[in-house]
Amino acid sequence: MLTCGIIGATGYAGAELTRILLSHPEVSSLALSSSSQAGEEMRRVYPNLDGPALGRTVLVNQERALESSDVVFASLPHGLAEEIAAACSKAGKLFIDISADFRFGADEATYSAWYGKKYAYPELHAASVYGLPELNRDKIRALGAAKRGSAKGGARIIGNPGCYPTCAELGLFPALRLGIARPEWIVIDAKSGVTGAGREPTKATHYPEIADSIVPYKIGEHRHTPEIASVLSTMADGPVGVVFTPHLAPMGRGIVSTIYFRITEGALGGAEGRAPRAAALREAYVAFYKDEPFVRIRPEGLVATNKDVRLSNYCDISLHMAHDGRTAIVVSAIDNMVKGAAGQAVQNMNIALGLDERLGIAMLPPAF
Amino acid sequence: MLTCGIIGATGYAGAELTRILLSHPEVSSLALSSSSQAGEEMRRVYPNLDGPALGRTVLVNQERALESSDVVFASLPHGLAEEIAAACSKAGKLFIDISADFRFGADEATYSAWYGKKYAYPELHAASVYGLPELNRDKIRALGAAKRGSAKGGARIIGNPGCYPTCAELGLFPALRLGIARPEWIVIDAKSGVTGAGREPTKATHYPEIADSIVPYKIGEHRHTPEIASVLSTMADGPVGVVFTPHLAPMGRGIVSTIYFRITEGALGGAEGRAPRAAALREAYVAFYKDEPFVRIRPEGLVATNKDVRLSNYCDISLHMAHDGRTAIVVSAIDNMVKGAAGQAVQNMNIALGLDERLGIAMLPPAF
Amino acid sequence: MLTCGIIGATGYAGAELTRILLSHPEVSSLALSSSSQAGEEMRRVYPNLDGPALGRTVLVNQERALESSDVVFASLPHGLAEEIAAACSKAGKLFIDISADFRFGADEATYSAWYGKKYAYPELHAASVYGLPELNRDKIRALGAAKRGSAKGGARIIGNPGCYPTCAELGLFPALRLGIARPEWIVIDAKSGVTGAGREPTKATHYPEIADSIVPYKIGEHRHTPEIASVLSTMADGPVGVVFTPHLAPMGRGIVSTIYFRITEGALGGAEGRAPRAAALREAYVAFYKDEPFVRIRPEGLVATNKDVRLSNYCDISLHMAHDGRTAIVVSAIDNMVKGAAGQAVQNMNIALGLDERLGIAMLPPAF
Amino acid sequence: MLTCGIIGATGYAGAELTRILLSHPEVSSLALSSSSQAGEEMRRVYPNLDGPALGRTVLVNQERALESSDVVFASLPHGLAEEIAAACSKAGKLFIDISADFRFGADEATYSAWYGKKYAYPELHAASVYGLPELNRDKIRALGAAKRGSAKGGARIIGNPGCYPTCAELGLFPALRLGIARPEWIVIDAKSGVTGAGREPTKATHYPEIADSIVPYKIGEHRHTPEIASVLSTMADGPVGVVFTPHLAPMGRGIVSTIYFRITEGALGGAEGRAPRAAALREAYVAFYKDEPFVRIRPEGLVATNKDVRLSNYCDISLHMAHDGRTAIVVSAIDNMVKGAAGQAVQNMNIALGLDERLGIAMLPPAF
Repeated sequence: MLTCGIIGATGYAGAELTRILLSHPEVSSLALSSSSQAGEEMRRVYPNLDGPALGRTVLVNQERALESSDVVFASLPHGLAEEIAAACSKAGKLFIDISADFRFGADEATYSAWYGKKYAYPELHAASVYGLPELNRDKIRALGAAKRGSAKGGARIIGNPGCYPTCAELGLFPALRLGIARPEWIVIDAKSGVTGAGREPTKATHYPEIADSIVPYKIGEHRHTPEIASVLSTMADGPVGVVFTPHLAPMGRGIVSTIYFRITEGALGGAEGRAPRAAALREAYVAFYKDEPFVRIRPEGLVATNKDVRLSNYCDISLHMAHDGRTAIVVSAIDNMVKGAAGQAVQNMNIALGLDERLGIAMLPPAF
Repeated sequence: MLTCGIIGATGYAGAELTRILLSHPEVSSLALSSSSQAGEEMRRVYPNLDGPALGRTVLVNQERALESSDVVFASLPHGLAEEIAAACSKAGKLFIDISADFRFGADEATYSAWYGKKYAYPELHAASVYGLPELNRDKIRALGAAKRGSAKGGARIIGNPGCYPTCAELGLFPALRLGIARPEWIVIDAKSGVTGAGREPTKATHYPEIADSIVPYKIGEHRHTPEIASVLSTMADGPVGVVFTPHLAPMGRGIVSTIYFRITEGALGGAEGRAPRAAALREAYVAFYKDEPFVRIRPEGLVATNKDVRLSNYCDISLHMAHDGRTAIVVSAIDNMVKGAAGQAVQNMNIALGLDERLGIAMLPPAF
Repeated sequence: MLTCGIIGATGYAGAELTRILLSHPEVSSLALSSSSQAGEEMRRVYPNLDGPALGRTVLVNQERALESSDVVFASLPHGLAEEIAAACSKAGKLFIDISADFRFGADEATYSAWYGKKYAYPELHAASVYGLPELNRDKIRALGAAKRGSAKGGARIIGNPGCYPTCAELGLFPALRLGIARPEWIVIDAKSGVTGAGREPTKATHYPEIADSIVPYKIGEHRHTPEIASVLSTMADGPVGVVFTPHLAPMGRGIVSTIYFRITEGALGGAEGRAPRAAALREAYVAFYKDEPFVRIRPEGLVATNKDVRLSNYCDISLHMAHDGRTAIVVSAIDNMVKGAAGQAVQNMNIALGLDERLGIAMLPPAF
Repeated sequence: MLTCGIIGATGYAGAELTRILLSHPEVSSLALSSSSQAGEEMRRVYPNLDGPALGRTVLVNQERALESSDVVFASLPHGLAEEIAAACSKAGKLFIDISADFRFGADEATYSAWYGKKYAYPELHAASVYGLPELNRDKIRALGAAKRGSAKGGARIIGNPGCYPTCAELGLFPALRLGIARPEWIVIDAKSGVTGAGREPTKATHYPEIADSIVPYKIGEHRHTPEIASVLSTMADGPVGVVFTPHLAPMGRGIVSTIYFRITEGALGGAEGRAPRAAALREAYVAFYKDEPFVRIRPEGLVATNKDVRLSNYCDISLHMAHDGRTAIVVSAIDNMVKGAAGQAVQNMNIALGLDERLGIAMLPPAF
């Protein structure tokens, strides 16, 4: 049985992680930290969690949470994870970071360009793994095998993917890996619920400002752009031209990405015509993801939507062809707080520790 | 391990029951019936539920679902449950009815007056139990003890309470039982999410008609009125004058009932003044419900809301005093689909079968 | 043609007033002030208002707005209106205050008890009028008749009613004035859209916290309580016992108040039974309000809701009887930003200046 | 002063048209028809419209509405407008059709392929004008000039554009006409409020199914596709490859279209780099639309959204460049019921009759 530490437990991702881990059968206790509310009972901050599982757990400071945990999760603003990673590395603890700090591996240049900060511990980044299980399951599992205390085994760091990147990357992985998508111009139009903006009230997330409205934002400059571009290029084994536009939509949870690309000449087994191509595309995705526990390819006639994955760790994907017969439209949907953050973090922990990958995150989505 | 039958599995309450029972550790399989969609795979009707637990379960007809089940739930329009009850009774099966048909016990007059139908099997009603565990736990448990096949044991029928009644009754139980509330005029102003109106599209539930609006309905004539009045009178051991107004609110799930009553002279240990009386009222409720696993009395400063109980079996209650110092205001909140329907039905099953009452329904509410 | 000044033009009420006055046929120009954004173009703060009517109007400071206006509106936090009133009074300008500062007339004790501030200019309060046209139309009109510069004419001050009070008071005026309602215990359960909480982002109004939820707040201690109690007592010509509970509902605009009172023995022409009493109550309201341009009594079968008054100056009222046959249930609905604030302020201006009362506020509500 | 007939007055577009025309200064009376509710008072069907302007107007049948009107609007399901057009043509009345029947001019092949119906009166289609004022103002005005009763003047028919087409076409007009956009692959990702689906309740528009969710639909096969493609080709004076995906979003009104295209080599005055190109693109749009009363190009830093145009006839457009520096992202937003239907229909009437184009549709959008 494990003790898990959550650094930054009172933000939305931290609270969601708390909620999930409180029901995880291999987790016996939690150490929750908060810089601003240390000393407070968590049940006063999140009255919804009140009950025997949480009990009177008091928020502690970061040091305390770190030292008492077997596995450490951090859900802090970008730029604060390296020191935690270093401490965990030294102690041979598994560290799963939900911020962007460990999503760029050895590519410090890209990280610096978009996040305005240099690497303090480049070797930790080089040893870290990007925690998208569908892409890197073996590498994540290998972290667990690394010996505790050994030079290499010290760095057991997982950079948990961003919410938009998870959704887009899973939607494009088969098309890129199988050479179906022409990589030079891929358009990702993503719609997110407001929890994605975090717990801090702002004008943009003030109810009267966003209810009943849909608002594109950070057009052409959202920080998830380089993460998506980098991972897609890995998937395609070559450069991918990505245009990514996020939208804030009047809903709580969920991301729906509508993804557009042209299909490669001769791909899809030479299928011709709109319907046969859509069917061939669907079959390719079904085959590609057939062993994935958390990816569901929707059958013909169903469109992926956040409604059907809400509060679950599923990524639903539906495949379509535009009227022009040569543009594929992939719809990919996740719950941004689960598969897009806390659920995927737990999935990564399960894999790294050799547990059943679905432990604690097999919740069925309520559709209404 | 149990096989559970759900008659009417494709309505909202039936689908929610399906979702909960798919994760119930003592349930090995489900028999799902639908009169309109028999022959269809459930995962086509509710794509959210697609996965290994549901598999390719096909909707069957009512007879088929009945015969293959150890426990039978029915979630049908009012007026159809008696025949199922009779069949279950004959076979000694536990039957839990989510409609209003078995909520009035021997009081056929009230049922007939409000639902326009006579009892076909009065003896089944007489033997049935109103499934509010906090009020009738012993009677529910006794059903399980009744011998299968014996004359009396045959009728193992639970009338699952209505959603509005569950919320209001739990909010008033201590005040009435302890003589705190003056019973002659109690006002219950209840606000419900739109799932409470069921799955059938209507003008009133068409998105543009109800989004951004709050609409009182069936004022002075909602069918939950006699159920509430009857149970409150049982709680008070005397007549209770109830005024109940339901509202449709622009939200998916949840009921928040704001309940007004005058406190009895000398009640609350003679506490005087607004704040002391509120504190005394809160303490009385805490003590009254101290062993209840699914009732949470909110501490001072917190107000009960559907947000904090969503997707859980909790009923949250907060206690307040009006500015006049003699009117108590009780706020009671549940998830109408869980504690107000499917979750409470499972709670009743657990109790009747002698299982841990919390099995399968210990979900923690996500607050966002 | 008038120049109107709006002190505090960038809050929600100020912006709504700006929007309405930009289309008012008797207003030729606006002087908009903002303490925090003076110097900025209004169209940058409210891009929705961009167009030829607003042009490049720049936000000015308070002094500037005051001196250039014939009529002055203030929409500031409570406690700041007296100095503006004094200045307007000196200059003989009509002043309409949207804060609570001038809603209590000579009753300084109540104002001080709830708002924690003494009157600096008691004589201005004594001369001010509570701007509920349906109650005080003649007094409002008399303000206009007062000669500019004369001793008494100097104080031309209207305290615009609060949003909750407007809704509740109009819903109760006939019942109290005609002696239909027993005054000792009246319950007002009010539900408001989130614009009522103002423009400043807070945790309570952060989209993920309030969407999909309904939350009672300030139970037993909301500052609109004494305003309501005081005006109802005027209407009843005697003390009225009021219990008032506001709720924040997941909608942008609108207040729906569900109001409960017992009817006086022998009232309603001695009508007996639920339906006859409801009909008699409706007729009484229809007759009472027959000349009011902005009150609509809904016919039998229709329930008042914020949907049908949105973006208009209407107050819709529907009349019902509870199942007990002696409790009346009145539903009263307004748009909190229009009849509950800016629209009513313009109505007051029209009346005071002898204009057609409906000028600029005859908008028809869009129901969807 | 005019009498306007609205055929199909009880659908959402018809009701919105009624609301707008009730406040139009040149319209003295309305003749409202409904096939299903003839004989009923309109104020019973739309209680929001109750008031002196509507009075007790009773819904009549189509013939009656036609004969008593100077201008006829039809808002019926597709396929029913031709007979009305023929009747109006014979009588020399101006006819504005809100369905798709008159949007394809002489191109019967495209209409038949998508709407499954042949032209009964090809000559009426040939004489009709596509009512996008920004594109066809002169042709619309010429309709009015045509003499009543003359052979050519008989056919005074305007096909009012679809909601999605209006939004997309205005967003692309300058880019195509000025040769900025490469026409071979333009992606239009459009999000619409639920009023766009009409007044008839369906599963897709049932509140619990669409609240909190965003759902792409009719991917690759929406009937607005050929309308958009055809008009864009006219604008570009050559073939345009269009990929159009509509989404249903949890909001009442509004369409936000996010439009992606590559810029032509050397366009934008040779501007290089992301920011200069975005600025050049903005300037091109500002200049292009400088005389348009209902198109607002948002300044740098503002993104177009349905919030800022709600309940107005504005189309807001903002211009952006993707991070790749060569993909333009245009955001175009309208109120689907106003500029996307009823408002534009009134704009067309105003132009055709030689009235001030803004009469009756100069409403300022409320942003909250």
